[in-house]
Amino acid sequence: MGRRSLLLLLLAFLTPGASSPVSPSLRAPSSLPWSTSFKSRPTITLKYSIRYIQQKVDHFGFNIDRTFKQRYLIADNYWKEDGGSILFYTGNEGDIIWFCNNTGFMWDIAEEMKAMLVFAEHRYYGESLPFGADSFSDSKHLNFLTTEQALADFAKLIKYLKRTIPGARNQPVIALGGSYGGMLAAWFRMKYPHLVVGALASSAPIWQFNDLVPCDTFMKIVTTDFGRSGPNCSESIRRSWDAISRLAKKGSGLRWLSEALHLCTPLTKWQDVQHLKDWISETWVNLAMVDYPYESNFLQPLPAWPVKVVCQYFKYYNVPDTLMLQNIFQALNVYYNYSGQAKCLNVSETATSSLGVLGWSYQACTEMVMPTCSDGVDDMFEPHSWNMKEYSDDCFKQWGVRPRPSWIPTMYGGKNISSHTNIIFSNGELDPWSGGGVTKNITDTLLAIVIPNGAHHLDLRASNALDPVSVQLTRALEVKYMKQWISDFYVRLRKMN
Amino acid sequence: MGRRSLLLLLLAFLTPGASSPVSPSLRAPSSLPWSTSFKSRPTITLKYSIRYIQQKVDHFGFNIDRTFKQRYLIADNYWKEDGGSILFYTGNEGDIIWFCNNTGFMWDIAEEMKAMLVFAEHRYYGESLPFGADSFSDSKHLNFLTTEQALADFAKLIKYLKRTIPGARNQPVIALGGSYGGMLAAWFRMKYPHLVVGALASSAPIWQFNDLVPCDTFMKIVTTDFGRSGPNCSESIRRSWDAISRLAKKGSGLRWLSEALHLCTPLTKWQDVQHLKDWISETWVNLAMVDYPYESNFLQPLPAWPVKVVCQYFKYYNVPDTLMLQNIFQALNVYYNYSGQAKCLNVSETATSSLGVLGWSYQACTEMVMPTCSDGVDDMFEPHSWNMKEYSDDCFKQWGVRPRPSWIPTMYGGKNISSHTNIIFSNGELDPWSGGGVTKNITDTLLAIVIPNGAHHLDLRASNALDPVSVQLTRALEVKYMKQWISDFYVRLRKMN
Repeated sequence: MGRRSLLLLLLAFLTPGASSPVSPSLRAPSSLPWSTSFKSRPTITLKYSIRYIQQKVDHFGFNIDRTFKQRYLIADNYWKEDGGSILFYTGNEGDIIWFCNNTGFMWDIAEEMKAMLVFAEHRYYGESLPFGADSFSDSKHLNFLTTEQALADFAKLIKYLKRTIPGARNQPVIALGGSYGGMLAAWFRMKYPHLVVGALASSAPIWQFNDLVPCDTFMKIVTTDFGRSGPNCSESIRRSWDAISRLAKKGSGLRWLSEALHLCTPLTKWQDVQHLKDWISETWVNLAMVDYPYESNFLQPLPAWPVKVVCQYFKYYNVPDTLMLQNIFQALNVYYNYSGQAKCLNVSETATSSLGVLGWSYQACTEMVMPTCSDGVDDMFEPHSWNMKEYSDDCFKQWGVRPRPSWIPTMYGGKNISSHTNIIFSNGELDPWSGGGVTKNITDTLLAIVIPNGAHHLDLRASNALDPVSVQLTRALEVKYMKQWISDFYVRLRKMN
Repeated sequence: MGRRSLLLLLLAFLTPGASSPVSPSLRAPSSLPWSTSFKSRPTITLKYSIRYIQQKVDHFGFNIDRTFKQRYLIADNYWKEDGGSILFYTGNEGDIIWFCNNTGFMWDIAEEMKAMLVFAEHRYYGESLPFGADSFSDSKHLNFLTTEQALADFAKLIKYLKRTIPGARNQPVIALGGSYGGMLAAWFRMKYPHLVVGALASSAPIWQFNDLVPCDTFMKIVTTDFGRSGPNCSESIRRSWDAISRLAKKGSGLRWLSEALHLCTPLTKWQDVQHLKDWISETWVNLAMVDYPYESNFLQPLPAWPVKVVCQYFKYYNVPDTLMLQNIFQALNVYYNYSGQAKCLNVSETATSSLGVLGWSYQACTEMVMPTCSDGVDDMFEPHSWNMKEYSDDCFKQWGVRPRPSWIPTMYGGKNISSHTNIIFSNGELDPWSGGGVTKNITDTLLAIVIPNGAHHLDLRASNALDPVSVQLTRALEVKYMKQWISDFYVRLRKMN
């Protein structure tokens, strides 16, 4: 199994409602419900209206003239026509209300920026289904699920809002997004600079494609996170895979493992053991992504600095296999059962059902091919090479399409993006996706901010009393730059009139 | 008929082999064969190889994985690996060999720029037919004829050339094009700035869309050209339409007209008279576009300054209708029978068959909606308003698709393009398409050059002893800027290494 790609092994886990492991924010969406996230400060009421716009199913062809309803949310409580702005969330692979509820940063700065907030749902997710219930039925119906079509939806929506909302026409728009949505925000500024004055791309691994970064970068960062969160932590995990294998091979080993880990569905064959390992791997990966400094709520509630909590169970690696498994169980419980409500652990679930796994699985099999691999030496995982041929074959089996791994760099420039302007790339240093992100300034208007002790798009989350100073400074810097873009816009506007 | 759009009236003329009047370069491609154009100076031998690249029929969807062969030409006689460059012609709506033979400027500067020349054929034109003979059979097969797909072809081709030609990888590429190809060159730099360091967009009416410029601009410029090419010239033409009508209404008027104009196919019904007028209008428009300062060869050979020659027949407007018609015939002969070989005049032809009329007619009915109109007061044509509804209905009748007139400005920025860099927009002042072009500098890297006494993309034609100083200076300036882009590229490259 070592030659199969990690990604596809994990993809095999997918069932509706479960997460696809290749989606950045599938791994770590900030999922704290609003009411909870503001526990430590005055409550801001989320007040938005839900609206719809008719979009062409195919912006890039004229043979199919069908339209569909794209959902978007608008909040104008703090919007000012005079000197205001429009903050435009470039929706990613899930329900837009869920993203809206989990992007506290935009709500926190709305008043200061005199901003109208717009959250645009990504086609094929949430309610924005081009062919309703048939949207995922085959590759013909899925044909219009691409980043280019999604960006075109955003473009048409912005033009529509400017045309129809009195006072909006001469206002600067800024694109904001996190994870895959962060890529979309950056790409939107690159491709439609006439529609947005700048973009905040938080935890956007725009270089996790093709050979732009080594495929092992991602798992190395996860390993570093665990390594620094407790003595022997990553080493114990590295050794745990063999312990699982040894136990599984024993007589009635599968039953023993199933019971020791309280699995909802017992293991019955050797293949299940590989699935189990992949599920555990993905859990560690998810934990690295959501290693937030305060209690948060991702699928199940999580403690502050959850990786540290998990690492308490991996202090010793020279322990008997059975004890190692009990420790793994305790560690898994931190992620899956912090509330103490879970009766058993379900190996086909790792993330919230607000994310659209079918759509993402298709995107990963077409444009969004983000190679990852591990070697078990520089990282704490079992070795998995990246095999494009197998990946492609599996995609063809699953969706009837073949990925085009070099397309995204061809379309969006790969590492050669210096001619663009006004994009902030922020990355949490703990976030495994930061390895595919922009972490150094490219020019004086293509800026990188790295957040020490920050996990996946921490800066986009609502402010919290336990936020480290680093993320507070990051947000302040982001606001400063965005205000500069807005002010530049108004200067240009005055010059023109 | 006054309420029908000029455009569609003219479209009704279309037969295979004839030109579509809405294509900028359909109206005025520089068609002088190479051997002729260099009469007045040392002959440069056109030496290129013809190659093909497999392209995806659909770059923006994965359901159709079919590929087709895109043709391109390469000339590397003067190319230097050390400090050289790649000049990339963004092919437009016709046979690429014909464009190659008519873009003498690139050949003239190849040595000075140490340049490899690449001429990429536009999909659905020349030999680059995605579905072979079926390519134009219906809207399903035509679905992939868009500017976005064409630009993606160019992007893939450049990536491929850089990957496969030793020494090409670290060389700067510049996009060049004229007319519709000039739009593509500009848009290519806007959308793929990572692949080309700049673009020379000659006579590219990127603003001839939607309401970006008044629809009557085009015909006004044609009128001005005729007005300044001889006394009473435009006024005579303005009055000629009624003369035609009056004669047509007489007993046996249609026969008389057919004989007076030596038409190959006699007029038989009133509708034919309108077609005749449209054909004559288009002839005047074409003449304005190809009003070059030296003998040239467009469909038929043309004298130097052909509009002046034509205007010799329109010195007097107070003449009997029959004399007016004889003058029109003489004037038409300048365009259609300069060689003296024509036996009759054919109202269904106005331009070379190297242009792809079917493809352009489809493009004009989808993305490339370029409104024109006339009022008969500020211009010398009969009044034709622009009626989008009728235009759309006629397109639907012809192709089963409806145009999306606001799409091009949404996609490519309309007038709000100041964030881009390194594009030269050159326009001949005589060229009617200059009305939709960029004729004022936008920033210090988005430059406009207006060529007094210049017709349609005169600067892209081979140098000629009779070239006015203005176009010589224009070309020198273009070379200067292109060299600056190249030198900036190599400075950046050295910094990176």
